[in-house]
Amino acid sequence: MSGEVIPISESDVSDFSQTVTPSFTATGIPGFDELLGGGIPTGRVVLVLGEPGAGKTTLCSHFLANGYSKFQENGVYVSLEENKIHLYREMARYGIDFAEAERNKRFAFVEASPIRHAPSILTAGNMTIGKKEFSLMALMDSIKRAIATVDAKRVVIDPLSYLIFLYTSSAELRGALLDLMEGLSELNATVLMTSELKNSGSVVRSTIQMEEYVAHGTIIMQSIKVGTSLQRVIQVQKMRESEIDRQPRPYAISKNGITVYPKESVL
Amino acid sequence: MSGEVIPISESDVSDFSQTVTPSFTATGIPGFDELLGGGIPTGRVVLVLGEPGAGKTTLCSHFLANGYSKFQENGVYVSLEENKIHLYREMARYGIDFAEAERNKRFAFVEASPIRHAPSILTAGNMTIGKKEFSLMALMDSIKRAIATVDAKRVVIDPLSYLIFLYTSSAELRGALLDLMEGLSELNATVLMTSELKNSGSVVRSTIQMEEYVAHGTIIMQSIKVGTSLQRVIQVQKMRESEIDRQPRPYAISKNGITVYPKESVL
Amino acid sequence: MSGEVIPISESDVSDFSQTVTPSFTATGIPGFDELLGGGIPTGRVVLVLGEPGAGKTTLCSHFLANGYSKFQENGVYVSLEENKIHLYREMARYGIDFAEAERNKRFAFVEASPIRHAPSILTAGNMTIGKKEFSLMALMDSIKRAIATVDAKRVVIDPLSYLIFLYTSSAELRGALLDLMEGLSELNATVLMTSELKNSGSVVRSTIQMEEYVAHGTIIMQSIKVGTSLQRVIQVQKMRESEIDRQPRPYAISKNGITVYPKESVL
Amino acid sequence: MSGEVIPISESDVSDFSQTVTPSFTATGIPGFDELLGGGIPTGRVVLVLGEPGAGKTTLCSHFLANGYSKFQENGVYVSLEENKIHLYREMARYGIDFAEAERNKRFAFVEASPIRHAPSILTAGNMTIGKKEFSLMALMDSIKRAIATVDAKRVVIDPLSYLIFLYTSSAELRGALLDLMEGLSELNATVLMTSELKNSGSVVRSTIQMEEYVAHGTIIMQSIKVGTSLQRVIQVQKMRESEIDRQPRPYAISKNGITVYPKESVL
Amino acid sequence: MSGEVIPISESDVSDFSQTVTPSFTATGIPGFDELLGGGIPTGRVVLVLGEPGAGKTTLCSHFLANGYSKFQENGVYVSLEENKIHLYREMARYGIDFAEAERNKRFAFVEASPIRHAPSILTAGNMTIGKKEFSLMALMDSIKRAIATVDAKRVVIDPLSYLIFLYTSSAELRGALLDLMEGLSELNATVLMTSELKNSGSVVRSTIQMEEYVAHGTIIMQSIKVGTSLQRVIQVQKMRESEIDRQPRPYAISKNGITVYPKESVL
Amino acid sequence: MSGEVIPISESDVSDFSQTVTPSFTATGIPGFDELLGGGIPTGRVVLVLGEPGAGKTTLCSHFLANGYSKFQENGVYVSLEENKIHLYREMARYGIDFAEAERNKRFAFVEASPIRHAPSILTAGNMTIGKKEFSLMALMDSIKRAIATVDAKRVVIDPLSYLIFLYTSSAELRGALLDLMEGLSELNATVLMTSELKNSGSVVRSTIQMEEYVAHGTIIMQSIKVGTSLQRVIQVQKMRESEIDRQPRPYAISKNGITVYPKESVL
Repeated sequence: MSGEVIPISESDVSDFSQTVTPSFTATGIPGFDELLGGGIPTGRVVLVLGEPGAGKTTLCSHFLANGYSKFQENGVYVSLEENKIHLYREMARYGIDFAEAERNKRFAFVEASPIRHAPSILTAGNMTIGKKEFSLMALMDSIKRAIATVDAKRVVIDPLSYLIFLYTSSAELRGALLDLMEGLSELNATVLMTSELKNSGSVVRSTIQMEEYVAHGTIIMQSIKVGTSLQRVIQVQKMRESEIDRQPRPYAISKNGITVYPKESVL
Repeated sequence: MSGEVIPISESDVSDFSQTVTPSFTATGIPGFDELLGGGIPTGRVVLVLGEPGAGKTTLCSHFLANGYSKFQENGVYVSLEENKIHLYREMARYGIDFAEAERNKRFAFVEASPIRHAPSILTAGNMTIGKKEFSLMALMDSIKRAIATVDAKRVVIDPLSYLIFLYTSSAELRGALLDLMEGLSELNATVLMTSELKNSGSVVRSTIQMEEYVAHGTIIMQSIKVGTSLQRVIQVQKMRESEIDRQPRPYAISKNGITVYPKESVL
Repeated sequence: MSGEVIPISESDVSDFSQTVTPSFTATGIPGFDELLGGGIPTGRVVLVLGEPGAGKTTLCSHFLANGYSKFQENGVYVSLEENKIHLYREMARYGIDFAEAERNKRFAFVEASPIRHAPSILTAGNMTIGKKEFSLMALMDSIKRAIATVDAKRVVIDPLSYLIFLYTSSAELRGALLDLMEGLSELNATVLMTSELKNSGSVVRSTIQMEEYVAHGTIIMQSIKVGTSLQRVIQVQKMRESEIDRQPRPYAISKNGITVYPKESVL
Repeated sequence: MSGEVIPISESDVSDFSQTVTPSFTATGIPGFDELLGGGIPTGRVVLVLGEPGAGKTTLCSHFLANGYSKFQENGVYVSLEENKIHLYREMARYGIDFAEAERNKRFAFVEASPIRHAPSILTAGNMTIGKKEFSLMALMDSIKRAIATVDAKRVVIDPLSYLIFLYTSSAELRGALLDLMEGLSELNATVLMTSELKNSGSVVRSTIQMEEYVAHGTIIMQSIKVGTSLQRVIQVQKMRESEIDRQPRPYAISKNGITVYPKESVL
Repeated sequence: MSGEVIPISESDVSDFSQTVTPSFTATGIPGFDELLGGGIPTGRVVLVLGEPGAGKTTLCSHFLANGYSKFQENGVYVSLEENKIHLYREMARYGIDFAEAERNKRFAFVEASPIRHAPSILTAGNMTIGKKEFSLMALMDSIKRAIATVDAKRVVIDPLSYLIFLYTSSAELRGALLDLMEGLSELNATVLMTSELKNSGSVVRSTIQMEEYVAHGTIIMQSIKVGTSLQRVIQVQKMRESEIDRQPRPYAISKNGITVYPKESVL
Repeated sequence: MSGEVIPISESDVSDFSQTVTPSFTATGIPGFDELLGGGIPTGRVVLVLGEPGAGKTTLCSHFLANGYSKFQENGVYVSLEENKIHLYREMARYGIDFAEAERNKRFAFVEASPIRHAPSILTAGNMTIGKKEFSLMALMDSIKRAIATVDAKRVVIDPLSYLIFLYTSSAELRGALLDLMEGLSELNATVLMTSELKNSGSVVRSTIQMEEYVAHGTIIMQSIKVGTSLQRVIQVQKMRESEIDRQPRPYAISKNGITVYPKESVL
C-alpha cells in the first residue's frame, strides 16, 4: 500500500531555488500601516475579525478604495450578504464612490449571496457535487473572473460567515478553510476576508476561532471597557512575514473613515 | 460547469449609476435620536435586542405612534406573540391609542402568531413546502398587505424569537435571517424587529448572537449594576450609514414613555 | 398560495373599539405590592422564578390565601409536583388553613401530577395525540373546571418544570409556552406560575430562561452575597402595564409569612 | 376526550379534614440541629449534596447511629456504591458500631449496588420492564423490607448518583425523581439521600442541580476559600416546614464525628 | 415479580461480626505521609489527579519504589500509555532502578496499552463481549497475575484516561468505575490510579470529575498562581478512614524526587 | 477466555537490562535551552501549543535550522497546512535558507497537506481502511522516508490540527494520539509537533487539551496581559526526564528570531 498511492511526498529539491523577499501592500488607512509594519504582506490572505458594528466592511472598503485611488491597484469586493446598493450608499458617506470606480474599471463588485440558494445536490454531467463544494468552487470561479476584468491586486471577501456555517464538522470546516486559503493564495492578489467574533469585550481571548489559525494574518476589531467608557480597539494578532505591533490600539470611525492611533495604549 | 450555471455574477456597471444620500427616520423618543445621529437610517432593518422587561415593545410602539402622530408616517405592528388587546391596553398607559389610529387608517396590527400552528408540511398544488419556509413567506405576505392598507413607512416585528427557534442549523438560520433581511429591505419602510438577549448584565458582550451581525443596526436594552443599584442602559452597538454614539446611556420608562439620557455616562 | 390559506391576518378594525384601563390584583404580601406598583395586573400571567428554598410556593400560597381572606377573591392551586397533604401542612405554619378554605369553597386544589403518568401516545376515537399535547390540554381542562367550582379569580401553577422538561426542541417549547399563555390569559383570572432558576447568586443574569420572555411579568427570588452573609432578594424584573420598582429588594420568611422590604437597597 | 379519561382531578374536599402539626427528627449532630431549626422535618426526604470528601456518608451515618443510640429510632442504610465492610470500617473510627447495631436489630444495611447489573430489559410474565423502572422498583421494594425488619424511622440512601445517571432525558429524570420522592414519602420514615455537587467552591451556586428542586430540603457540604485557607462549610439551603438558618456555617470532622458551628460566619 | 428476582438484599447479620481497625501504607515521600495522616489507608483505591507535568507518574513510582526498598512491600506498575523503557529511563534520574527491582522480583511492569487495539467485538465460544467489557476484564486479569508473580502489596495504574474515554454514557462510565473499584478492592493491595484534570489552576474546583466521587481517596496535583509565580500544590481532597489535612500544600520535584511541605500555606 | 487471547502481558525481565542516561537536544534558541534544563530530551516527542501568531512555526523552524547549522543534526519539516514557498519566504526574514539546506541534503520538507484529500474509504487489495487510519499511516511513512533521505535527527510536524479534527470520539482521538506518539518515538529523532490553543490569555489553564497529556513534554506560547500591555510568554509546562523551569517567561520575536528571557518574571 505504501509505494505508489501515498499522496504525501517530500519536496523536489530542484523546483525551489530562490527565496522571495516579502513586500507589503499598504492599506492607506491612517495609522494602520504602522501597526502592520508597512502593510499587508503582498499576496497573503488576512482575516479581519470583528464584533457587530466594529467597522469590518468600512476597513475593507477603504483598503480597496485607497488601492485604486492612491496605489494604482484595482480591487474586487465579494459580498456574500450585503447588497450592492447598500454598500455603495454606506461608503458614499466616506467619500468613496464605488459606482464611479466600477465604471472606470478600477473596481468590481461580486454579489455572491446567490450561493445561499444553490440546491443541496447539484449534478454536472454524470458528476454529483454537494452544496458546500459547489459554493466554494463557484465563489472561486467568480472571484477569478472579476479579478481578470479589472486586473485586481486587492480582493475583499465579506463575510465568510455563511460559508463557515455550512460546515458542522470541524474536520470538514478545517479542510474547507485550507482549500479556500489555497485557492485565494493562487490569485496573485492581497486578500482581506472578514469573519465574526463569537465573543467580544476582551483583548485576551477566551475562545479562539478556527479561522484565526488558518489565515496568514488576523486583525481583530472590537470594543473594550476602558475607564468609564467603551473604546474601540484594533489589534494585529498575527501576520506572517511581518514585524508587527501586537498591542491593541484605539481607532475611530468618522466621516473621514477609519483612523488608528498606533502610539496610544489602551490597557 | 462554469459558464452558464454559476449563480454568482459581477454586477453590471450600467445598472447602478448614482449613490443615494442617506436620510433618517426619527424615532421621536426623547434623547434617543441624538444617540442615533438623527434617527434610524431610512429603509434599514434594525434589531432591538433586550432582556425581559427592558421595554422593547414600548420602544417599538413609540416608534410607530410618534411616526403617525408627529411625522406623518403610518405604521404596521406585526406581533408574533402578544395579542392585540394586550398590546393596546399596555400602550394606553402611555397615552398611545392604537385603536383610534387603526380606525383612522394610520396604523395596522398584524397578528402573526397563527404561523405557530401551521402544519409541518404544506402542499400547494403539486408543490411541497416546509413549515419554516411557509412561515417566512406568510409573514412577508401579511406584512406587505398591511403596509399597502395604511401606506406604512414604519414597520415593527415583535419578536423574531419563534422564527429563530424554528432553525436548529446555524447555516439554515443564517440563510433565513438573510432572506428575511432581503424581504424587509424591499418594503420601502424603516423596520424595527425585536429579539431576546440570551445573556445580560454587561455592556461588553461575552456571547454575540447571530441576528446582531445580520441586521443593519443593533440597539441593546438591558440592566447593568451601577454603584448600588441596577440601571437601565441602552446602547446603539451598530448602525449602518450613521455616525452614532456607541456608549451605553441610561434610559427610563415612565408614564411619559421612554426617555434616553444621551449625555450621561454609566460605566 | 396566498389568498385563502394564509393564516395571518391584519386585525379587523371594527372588532376592537375601546382600550381597557388596567387594574391590579393585590398580593397582600407586606411590602410586595409596593414593588409591583399596586399588585399583579389583573388577568395577567406572571412567572415566579426562584432558586431551591427561595419560597416560591410560600409566596404563591399567600397570594391565594390573602385573596380569599382579604380581597374576596377565591383561588385555585394547581400542583404538578407537591402533594396536597404536604402543601397544607407546610402552609399551616403560616396560619393558612387551605383545608378549611376548601370546605368553604373559597379554594380548590388540583393535583396535576398524574400527567406524568400519561402514556406517550393517546388515542381518542380515531385521533392520536402525543403526551405533550395531552398534558397541556388536560391541565387546562382541569384548571377550568376548578375555577368554575369556586369561581376563582386567582390561580397558581406550581411548578411548570415538568412541562418545560417535556420539550427538547426550543421551537416546540416556545410554541407550548405561548399556547399555555394564551390558554391562561383566557381564564379571566390572575395567574402566578413558578419555575426554577438554572443559575443563581447574581441579580444581573448571565443566562436568561425562555419562560422569562414569554410571561407577562417575572418575579425573581434568590439569595445573593451581601457583605458577609447571604441575603434573600426579590426582584420584579418585568411587569406588563405596570410602573414597577425593578431594584432587587430584601425579603424575609418567618412564621408571619413573607415580608418584602421595598425601601432597602441590597447591592 | 375530557370527561372520563382526564387523569387530573380537583381534590375531594371530604378526604382531607385536618392539618398536621410538623415535628422534627433530630440529627444529634452537634450544632447541626440548631441550623435546621430543630432537626429534619419528620417524614420528609432531604438531599445531602456535597463535593468529594465533604463527609456526606459520615453525616448520614451519624444521623442513623444517633437515631438508634440516642432517640430510640432504628435506621436503614441503603448503599448503592460502597460495600458493607468498607462502610463499617470507616464508621468504626467514629465509635459507630453498625455491626453490633445490626445484630441488635436496630440497624439494617441494604446493599443496592446489584441494580447496576440488572439486564437492560426484564420480562415478568408477559410484561416487559426497562432497567430504569426496574431499578427504582427494586430499590423501593428492598427499602420497604429492610424498614419492616428493624421498624426503622430513619433511612439513608447513599448516593443517588447511579440512578440519576441512568436518565439522559431531563423529563424522564424529573419524573423518576418525583416518583422516588413519592415512594420515599410513603415510608413513614425521615430520609436523607446523598448526591454529588457538579460544581463546588462557592456558596452562591452558578448551576443548580435538578434534585435540589425536587427534594423537600437540601443540605450542601463543600469547601470554600476563606482568607488563606480552605474552610469546610455546610449550608441548609432549603427545608420545607422549617425556620432554618440559611447562612453557610463552618463544620469540622474529627474522631468525634461532625461538629457544626452555627454561630460562626464564614463569608 | 418481587420475591425471587430482586437482586438487592439486606445484609445477613451473621456474616459480619467484627470491625477492622484501619492501617496505613506509608508512601515514604517526604512530607506527604504527614498530609495523609500516616499514609494511604491499606487496601484502598486512591485517585491521583493532576495536570500535565504535575508529576503523577513520579509520585506513583516513588510510592512503589519506597514500598520495596523501605517497607518490604513489592509493587506492580500497570502502564496504559507510557512504554517500559521510557518509564525506566525517567525514573533512573531519581535513582530508582525498576529494572533491577524487576530482576529481583520486587517489582513487575504490566504493559496494558495493547487493550487499545482490541477489536470492538470479541467472541469467546458462543459468548460475545464488547471492547469496553473486555478491556476491564483483561486489565484485571493481568493485574492479578502480576501481583501473584511478585506478591505485590502496592499497585499503580497510570493513567485511567483511555478507559474513561471508552465510555460516552455517564451511567455506563459510572458502572464501569464502580466495577473497577470493586475489582481493585479485592486485590488485597493498596492502589494508586492516575487521571487527568480537565480544568486546572484553582484549589476550589469549578468542575468535579466523576472519578473523584468513586475513588476512596483523591489527591490533586496542580500549579496555582501564588504572588508573582506559579506554585505546585498538592491537596488531599478526600481520604476514607483518615484524618487528613485538606489544605493545599506546596511540593517540589528535584533529583531527590517529590518533597511535600506540609506546614506551608499557599493561599 | 483468559489464557491465550489476553493481549496484556507483564514484561519479560530478561529483555530490559540497562537504564539509559537521558541526553538533551539543544534548540539553540537564546534563553530557551536554559528553561528546558539543557534542551529537548533526545528522542522525545514534544508538543508546542500556541495561540494564533504566537510563533509556533518560527520556533520549530529555528529548532531545525539551528540543528543543521550549529549541531550537525539534519532535520525534516512536515507541513500539514502551510505550503513550502510560504514557509521558505517567512523563514528567509530570519536568515534561514531552507532551500539551500535542502539542496545540501541537511533538510527535507514534507508537504503532508494532500492527506486532506484522501477519500473517506480506501481499499488496498481486499483490505479496507478508513481515512483516519490511512492519514496516520501515510504520514508516518512519509516522515520515515524523509528522515532516511537526510539522516535527520530532528523532526517538526506543524500543525497536528487537521489530524485532531478528524476524530470526533475522545477514545478514538486518544488512541490515535497514542499511536502517533508510539510511531514518532520509534524514529530515533527528537520531535516537535505543534497544536492550537483553544483558549488563551492565562498561564493557569481553565481547559486542558488532550494532546497535552499524551505528549512527552508541552511548551505553551501565548500573550497575557501584564500591566498595561500584552506580553508574549513561553512556558515549559511539562518535560519528561528534565529538570525544567516551569514559570512563564517573556519572549520576543525579531529579525534575529526568537529570544527567551529566562530570568524575567511576568506574573
